Amino acid sequence: MFQNFDVTSDPSNGRKRLAALRKEMRRKKLDHYLVPHADQHQNEYLPKHAERLSWLTGFFGSAGFAVISLKQAVVFVDSRYTLQLREQVDPKSFKGANLIDTPPTNWITSNAKKRARIGYDPWLLTVGQHERFLKSAKEAGARLIACPNLIDRIWPDQPAPPLGRVEIHDISHAGKSAADKIREIQSAISAKGCNHCLLTDPASLCWLFNIRGSDVMHNPLVLGFAVVPAKGRPHLFIDKRKLTDDANTYLAKLVMLHPPSALKARLTKLTSRKSVLCDPNLVASKLADIIVKAGGKIVRGRDPVVLPRAIKNDVEISGTRNAHLRDGVAVCRFLSWLDAQIPGTVDEIGAAKQLEQFRVTTAKNMDSELKELSFDTISGAGPNGAIVHYRVNEATNRALDDGTLYLNDSGGQYVDGTTDITRTIAIGTPPKQAIEDFTLVLKGHIALALARFPEGTRGVDLDTLARKALWAEGKDYGHGTGHGVGSYLNVHEGPQSISKRGMEPLLPGMIISNEPGYYVEGEYGIRIENLVLVREAEIPEGGTTPMHGFETLTLAPIDLRLINAEMLSSGERNWLNTYHERVRNELTPYVGNDSKKWLATATKAI
Amino acid sequence: MFQNFDVTSDPSNGRKRLAALRKEMRRKKLDHYLVPHADQHQNEYLPKHAERLSWLTGFFGSAGFAVISLKQAVVFVDSRYTLQLREQVDPKSFKGANLIDTPPTNWITSNAKKRARIGYDPWLLTVGQHERFLKSAKEAGARLIACPNLIDRIWPDQPAPPLGRVEIHDISHAGKSAADKIREIQSAISAKGCNHCLLTDPASLCWLFNIRGSDVMHNPLVLGFAVVPAKGRPHLFIDKRKLTDDANTYLAKLVMLHPPSALKARLTKLTSRKSVLCDPNLVASKLADIIVKAGGKIVRGRDPVVLPRAIKNDVEISGTRNAHLRDGVAVCRFLSWLDAQIPGTVDEIGAAKQLEQFRVTTAKNMDSELKELSFDTISGAGPNGAIVHYRVNEATNRALDDGTLYLNDSGGQYVDGTTDITRTIAIGTPPKQAIEDFTLVLKGHIALALARFPEGTRGVDLDTLARKALWAEGKDYGHGTGHGVGSYLNVHEGPQSISKRGMEPLLPGMIISNEPGYYVEGEYGIRIENLVLVREAEIPEGGTTPMHGFETLTLAPIDLRLINAEMLSSGERNWLNTYHERVRNELTPYVGNDSKKWLATATKAI
Repeated sequence: MFQNFDVTSDPSNGRKRLAALRKEMRRKKLDHYLVPHADQHQNEYLPKHAERLSWLTGFFGSAGFAVISLKQAVVFVDSRYTLQLREQVDPKSFKGANLIDTPPTNWITSNAKKRARIGYDPWLLTVGQHERFLKSAKEAGARLIACPNLIDRIWPDQPAPPLGRVEIHDISHAGKSAADKIREIQSAISAKGCNHCLLTDPASLCWLFNIRGSDVMHNPLVLGFAVVPAKGRPHLFIDKRKLTDDANTYLAKLVMLHPPSALKARLTKLTSRKSVLCDPNLVASKLADIIVKAGGKIVRGRDPVVLPRAIKNDVEISGTRNAHLRDGVAVCRFLSWLDAQIPGTVDEIGAAKQLEQFRVTTAKNMDSELKELSFDTISGAGPNGAIVHYRVNEATNRALDDGTLYLNDSGGQYVDGTTDITRTIAIGTPPKQAIEDFTLVLKGHIALALARFPEGTRGVDLDTLARKALWAEGKDYGHGTGHGVGSYLNVHEGPQSISKRGMEPLLPGMIISNEPGYYVEGEYGIRIENLVLVREAEIPEGGTTPMHGFETLTLAPIDLRLINAEMLSSGERNWLNTYHERVRNELTPYVGNDSKKWLATATKAI
Repeated sequence: MFQNFDVTSDPSNGRKRLAALRKEMRRKKLDHYLVPHADQHQNEYLPKHAERLSWLTGFFGSAGFAVISLKQAVVFVDSRYTLQLREQVDPKSFKGANLIDTPPTNWITSNAKKRARIGYDPWLLTVGQHERFLKSAKEAGARLIACPNLIDRIWPDQPAPPLGRVEIHDISHAGKSAADKIREIQSAISAKGCNHCLLTDPASLCWLFNIRGSDVMHNPLVLGFAVVPAKGRPHLFIDKRKLTDDANTYLAKLVMLHPPSALKARLTKLTSRKSVLCDPNLVASKLADIIVKAGGKIVRGRDPVVLPRAIKNDVEISGTRNAHLRDGVAVCRFLSWLDAQIPGTVDEIGAAKQLEQFRVTTAKNMDSELKELSFDTISGAGPNGAIVHYRVNEATNRALDDGTLYLNDSGGQYVDGTTDITRTIAIGTPPKQAIEDFTLVLKGHIALALARFPEGTRGVDLDTLARKALWAEGKDYGHGTGHGVGSYLNVHEGPQSISKRGMEPLLPGMIISNEPGYYVEGEYGIRIENLVLVREAEIPEGGTTPMHGFETLTLAPIDLRLINAEMLSSGERNWLNTYHERVRNELTPYVGNDSKKWLATATKAI
């Protein structure tokens, strides 16, 4: 199994761990201590040894921040995690706060006393974050104190950093050789007038050198750092124990290999009197300090790998279509299996396990392999479906009862593509209100799937299309509508997004999710998610502006029992029927006899 | 008449004026000279003596910027003015460039040589602009040189600064006394921890002190400056010759009055060792220099008047409804008159004059007065309609010919409200393609008019609603969809807008335009514009999120001859019919017997 359902969080640990941390803080004469949900690479999903926020507070969402003071402790999470926070964290020890509306920097400005000492680990704050905290501290008359990580001192059984095996990501999947990619990135570094670029994002390393790893659960990442010069061989800092002989030979031809322990000395030597392109939203302030102390000049700019990684090439696009076919077959088999069960006899964990099993066997049947899940399956029955980033464990596990909705958000990592799909399923006879709400969400999903938009359009310009039908009924959802997705890489990949903050133009070749939802606390959650590919769109006769549009990649039925067809326009019905016809045609040859009949019914025209 | 149709621009002047400017530049050893479309107050519409860009280049749009070098001269305009620029400016002397995509700051970075000297008038660049030019100059290794305005030295018949009469804006229209407003703004200044606020935007002065003037054509503005202390009397710098005895008595009770010539000395004295709230997008860098030299501290922040001015109070809202009724009657009488004319017998100037006349007489008939037009009427027949901010003059004047479209964008300044309306009219039998395009634009207009959206929604979130129908046909328009509108103040008023850059939440009480369009160069222009008021919206049963929506203020028929009813959904048809019913009911009592029958036909249900 690629996932477990252990109760990883115990709110009762918070109090004594907090006491231990405060003891360390007093030793360092600190009034506050910053605990970000972060590692040295700004990974969204952290390697186990870096799960410091979770260890300290009990909160294990994928975004958060704690400010620990001697008398109080505040955990900041975004609206996706508000419910989850209440369940996982001891309310006597920790106060909750909204990460977006009242961020920790504001908290510092308003709450830190004059001359207060605020401790932080400079490996865990980026250059940009450090700057913002510095500004807040200054406004409060307080000081930021860089110090070794205090959690590491009090975490007795902290795991060691990971040593996941490094694999070569073959050009038959990558579509472009590492040598070509390096040349491309080196041109970008030259164009910025820089001597070097410091890459700290493992996804950038993986893309650039065509390697994949398993240092982080669900994300095929290799933890490491790289210094790419404008000319000549890149330097890659990586633990050699991770390399098979093949990988070692492959990498030795491309780069100079160094152990991570050599980073400081080598960076100092390389960057002295040189200009170094650093992404202020990725590079740790510690590394910037090293460069500046070496007499190097930091040039701020986006990680040059970000855009080429986001714009998939033809080989990657063809790969993702194959991965989605395979994944669609697995999901279809799962949905068909689920429909055959008597309501109440399956629970959330059972369903998640079964789906994972279908993904494993389907991949094998179709001459491929499920390398990993793309993330812990969100398997939420009834009210648990309303917890936007729910992770089921033995304590929260619920049966899929008659008359409820079941929300399943899951994905697979295949060597040719990363998938991410959400389906909301009627268990028995669904509540009438749920059908209306589901149809509103579907209208939003379709509006986005059908959108045609001019070059230069950004995600922010499209987000409203997915919400309009809900808004008309006085409803909304508290998360973004779409995130970028990698090619056998992170399931959350920038720079593009469809959300209120999506300022990145959507370019052909980008993969993004289309996932509006609606949540009724204590009752049910609804989300419909397909991945889509940005493509150039046909211009209708008489049209004058070059247009883009989306191709839907995900292939699985959308539950017809939750749709009120009368609420759909003919254009919307047409999209649904065409999509279902395509799903049926593409999946039927692979779903097996058990599911064929089910699929025909599940995809019938309405 | 509140407008004239003179040919104000003569491209042939450009060459010799440019030569004169270059002579001055050589005298000052300047390699480049910046000529913004700006006065000391960052007015959008400039007083005549500040029309330096227009005098130099011939271009008289409402936004632009020139960078004059010894060998070349570039005029930067946005996409609204691309066509206009070609007609008004001598292409042998001036090159055109896009103000948004390739702004002058970028031009400086790429084109200024090392040690180049770039001259500018520090009264005409804001603190923020100055900073951006400084950065660009630094990147190029060039220097910014503040100097007295060079255009003023070579403009022989430059008009004197205006001395428009100041009127008291009665509380029966303002809805709140100046004393109350001053207290409100002073709280905001205190909350920012500042001792003073420097106000340089005439619209802020007018709103705060409840005065109106006529220093700028079409905008009832009083040019001046104010220093508002957190406690005590504000200081107002204004030419006393503008004040009637009444206004003098009124203002003397509220503020300390000073002549503008006293500004530098008084500002130096007031701000020494004090913190002064300055809006970096409004305050001239010259004034910031004075404060800094005096030992004052600049605190950057938005002009505190901006938001209270944008959020209209109940008296202002009731006033604007009355103004729109009056204006709607005038427009209706005009449209009815126009329909009675034989195609080809009316020209653009004739139409604009006739409409102005209807506005004057209608206001008088309805016990009010047209104080001014809100802007020069855009009266564009056929291909001239495709010039987005067209201003007709004797040279460009065209007849409204059979088989063409006529676009009229106009507005009135009444003491109780400012209006702005665009109607596109079929002259004779319109081309079939124009009907389809008009209907697409109408669909966008209706989508926005009907929008319901959660608190916190910004203009950027709604802009796409107005474009979606056009996008689906491969079409788009190159301007924003809506701008804020003042209450007997500027017809373009921030901070809200409906556009790709509209980051300001739309709050109840804000007035904004809803004006999608579509333009076919050389053929026709289409725009449908109503003003709308942001209001709290009813939440439908089952709704869970507080919602806002729009109330349409503008009252005038939308040309049914340009609508293909088959392209409208039943919801869209319903909006149109309900709107037309309201227009008919509200206007009929006032339009007079000539127009009653026409109005009934023009507003019949489809």
